[in-house]
Amino acid sequence: MAVNADDFFKAANLDKPMDTMKSKVGSNVTLINVMQLPGPNTLGISLACIDYAPLGQNPPHTNPRATKILTMLERTLYVGFVTSNPDNKLFAKVLNKGDVFVFPHGLIHFQFNPIYDKPAVAIAALSSQNPRAITIANAVFGLKPPISDDVLAKAFQVQKGTIDWLQAQFWENNHN
Amino acid sequence: MAVNADDFFKAANLDKPMDTMKSKVGSNVTLINVMQLPGPNTLGISLACIDYAPLGQNPPHTNPRATKILTMLERTLYVGFVTSNPDNKLFAKVLNKGDVFVFPHGLIHFQFNPIYDKPAVAIAALSSQNPRAITIANAVFGLKPPISDDVLAKAFQVQKGTIDWLQAQFWENNHN
Amino acid sequence: MAVNADDFFKAANLDKPMDTMKSKVGSNVTLINVMQLPGPNTLGISLACIDYAPLGQNPPHTNPRATKILTMLERTLYVGFVTSNPDNKLFAKVLNKGDVFVFPHGLIHFQFNPIYDKPAVAIAALSSQNPRAITIANAVFGLKPPISDDVLAKAFQVQKGTIDWLQAQFWENNHN
Amino acid sequence: MAVNADDFFKAANLDKPMDTMKSKVGSNVTLINVMQLPGPNTLGISLACIDYAPLGQNPPHTNPRATKILTMLERTLYVGFVTSNPDNKLFAKVLNKGDVFVFPHGLIHFQFNPIYDKPAVAIAALSSQNPRAITIANAVFGLKPPISDDVLAKAFQVQKGTIDWLQAQFWENNHN
Amino acid sequence: MAVNADDFFKAANLDKPMDTMKSKVGSNVTLINVMQLPGPNTLGISLACIDYAPLGQNPPHTNPRATKILTMLERTLYVGFVTSNPDNKLFAKVLNKGDVFVFPHGLIHFQFNPIYDKPAVAIAALSSQNPRAITIANAVFGLKPPISDDVLAKAFQVQKGTIDWLQAQFWENNHN
Amino acid sequence: MAVNADDFFKAANLDKPMDTMKSKVGSNVTLINVMQLPGPNTLGISLACIDYAPLGQNPPHTNPRATKILTMLERTLYVGFVTSNPDNKLFAKVLNKGDVFVFPHGLIHFQFNPIYDKPAVAIAALSSQNPRAITIANAVFGLKPPISDDVLAKAFQVQKGTIDWLQAQFWENNHN
Repeated sequence: MAVNADDFFKAANLDKPMDTMKSKVGSNVTLINVMQLPGPNTLGISLACIDYAPLGQNPPHTNPRATKILTMLERTLYVGFVTSNPDNKLFAKVLNKGDVFVFPHGLIHFQFNPIYDKPAVAIAALSSQNPRAITIANAVFGLKPPISDDVLAKAFQVQKGTIDWLQAQFWENNHN
Repeated sequence: MAVNADDFFKAANLDKPMDTMKSKVGSNVTLINVMQLPGPNTLGISLACIDYAPLGQNPPHTNPRATKILTMLERTLYVGFVTSNPDNKLFAKVLNKGDVFVFPHGLIHFQFNPIYDKPAVAIAALSSQNPRAITIANAVFGLKPPISDDVLAKAFQVQKGTIDWLQAQFWENNHN
Repeated sequence: MAVNADDFFKAANLDKPMDTMKSKVGSNVTLINVMQLPGPNTLGISLACIDYAPLGQNPPHTNPRATKILTMLERTLYVGFVTSNPDNKLFAKVLNKGDVFVFPHGLIHFQFNPIYDKPAVAIAALSSQNPRAITIANAVFGLKPPISDDVLAKAFQVQKGTIDWLQAQFWENNHN
Repeated sequence: MAVNADDFFKAANLDKPMDTMKSKVGSNVTLINVMQLPGPNTLGISLACIDYAPLGQNPPHTNPRATKILTMLERTLYVGFVTSNPDNKLFAKVLNKGDVFVFPHGLIHFQFNPIYDKPAVAIAALSSQNPRAITIANAVFGLKPPISDDVLAKAFQVQKGTIDWLQAQFWENNHN
Repeated sequence: MAVNADDFFKAANLDKPMDTMKSKVGSNVTLINVMQLPGPNTLGISLACIDYAPLGQNPPHTNPRATKILTMLERTLYVGFVTSNPDNKLFAKVLNKGDVFVFPHGLIHFQFNPIYDKPAVAIAALSSQNPRAITIANAVFGLKPPISDDVLAKAFQVQKGTIDWLQAQFWENNHN
Repeated sequence: MAVNADDFFKAANLDKPMDTMKSKVGSNVTLINVMQLPGPNTLGISLACIDYAPLGQNPPHTNPRATKILTMLERTLYVGFVTSNPDNKLFAKVLNKGDVFVFPHGLIHFQFNPIYDKPAVAIAALSSQNPRAITIANAVFGLKPPISDDVLAKAFQVQKGTIDWLQAQFWENNHN
């Protein structure tokens, strides 16, 4: 099949602010990966532009197949990741425009816009053509059928009622 | 340095039941990895023997660097893993003695002993000499200092009070 | 195609003793790999349960694509591997129930049940979804058509008659 | 050694325009790699912010260890890469703000700002923590001691005088 | 499909001198790779036999996917490679019959027969089943349509007329 | 530390016939690997020149870490490899000057010079900077201390007396 320059190109409109209001967590992730860009099929890299509403966040999640390197394009984010067992230590930082932060492969991480009246914008590169994401809250509490509340009550050391409450929320991913 | 057969050997006493009562979640993971076994330093594999108290569990966690293949040695487990976004679908199964189950690389998974009066035992192999583990509840709610409750309240779509309650529990890993 | 939990599951009956009498070397290897378990297609791991007749063995062989980590489930084995040229040193050990031993990638290795009246059982994990095996005796002497006895007589530094005798034995693999 | 959040952070001032006038080709590459950011030592990713003077360029070069994914932040670039032998076909495109383009691993590529009175800015992610760069003109003509002009005259099918002229130019890398 | 010994075999006539006169640079590369040899499809290696006319050369090029190890079979070559930015240092050597030289992955390199009346022969192995080659002169100046002379004039720091002259030469690859 | 062209160079005298008479199997392998050539430390390739006495051989062995591609430089060899279990099929071929043959990663293989009065010469490239070799006869029968003859008698389906005879031969590797 003929391949041409368009297979390596995406008019991604990354400069246009995305609607972050449809998401309960207040953010929108525009991922440019192997699905949108046939060229880099086996090239080991993808890109995401992330818009954050005021007080919006990209909630705690993992990328099971990729390290992420994030650059602040507009305003401010409070970001962090948590190291693996047994330490589970939080590495967190406030980022301003032009700052760079790395989220290591597989660890739980988040970004949060602490400003109450201004959106924030960041761009992230990921070391996989198909990095996948697992949003923790959704993958633990937002399933239908759910994980048994016997399991989750003990895992989170709370009453089953608390688990049932959590499972009753409406869960929606801000990204795929 | 001289290397000998003992670098490839571990008298692991995997046949002795471990104490699962010290753990709030009711399980004990004995991991045989590169730390205990100098030989397989770069060999890409490790092994865990897991004891489950009655109603005990190996709570929802990820292995960020490994796929796990588990074999039931004694009695019964209810096990499952959750696929990545956007589906977050639960793949679950009841395992009996002699059954085998695979947990794919990086996905959230758990094992639960549904029997109220009998322990269970399983053995697991992992496709890394240092597979690491991230216990979800601990890595999200059990940190000191914590992740800000502003972040977690929105991520889990609950009141800050619920997050504060979760963060006040005592968190202890059942494995490293 | 729809994937479901059964693609990650195998009712392997690993708890049932296998018939080790059909094999001249007195062992049976039940391999759970990518053929039996569609899920772990690219996941880099497989599993084998091995039954040993009294005085039975898993004869000298290599796994050209995998390291193997073995755990004793029942009784005793004498195991070993041989390092590569020029040392060709034997690393051997007697394993009892609950012990663990690692056979590095690509090296010639074996397991032998030294007890004259009791079977032994072990479980092994391999760092490949398709580890392959090469049983040395069979791959050198058990071919039809054979490797020329001119080649083998010089390689083994014996008379052609000895080679011809070896090639006349009936060769049967105890595992694939 | 203690690792902390600063090992994953770089106050890169990527929002400040860099001086592109010191470079004869009219561009400046600010690379954030393993040297500036100890955290991602083995994480397989790095980042570059590139400023282009009016009519400036990032001249034809290869990244021998990485694929590059570039996003336009400000204004316009004419970009392209050349496929390997025997086709040596140019894949080229004009990028505007918000557009994305991928340069495959190891191929010769360039970016050029075609606007005579305005700078351009792009951000690039590379699939290696140490991607290296080879600027073609410099690596062929800018060496001291040089590659013999007997070799280069035949390779470029020109008189030795033309090669000597090329070698007499002053060569300076716009990036490392 | 049935595979047999012929899939691993190539009657390559590597002992017959090839015609090096058809090439303007005076060399012929006979590459034995995955296209000629179906067996080593994923085996990570290929082989090239290279004939050099008197004063012929294998001109500056890169192998974007492979390291090359070259052995002199007949007479003499002057060979070299250039390190990546910022050093761009030439590592060069004269090779005689029986000598070995390594060209690292991705770097620009060449071989030149400095003898005015005798051909030379070398054999090279490459660490990829499909190593690819990029002949620098051809991939920069020999394209139709060409890279804009605005870009190349500044990149090579010469007048557009010089670039136009270079682009007007007839470019032909001595190997694929 | 300073690296220079000599780190990538070896005056290997591969054009000089080696003494093949010191080896009982009648061959000499001159391996150029990471030990002789510091440059290609992580470059994934090495090279061997192999001399065969009349009726000499490179006896059945594996390279546990590499695929080998062999080119005939002088005269004739009968070569082959054996596929893994359960087929253990011989893929064999007679090679003449200029022919090429590939031995896949990890499989048992050999080369034999069938001419009673003339030496043969071949050159081989291997897809690892440290390919290792395991000569089967030596690694099974030539150990001190030996593998128990209880194990080997059953594995090779012969009397212990035959094993003891084999173990009493003097074993010497023709290569490392």
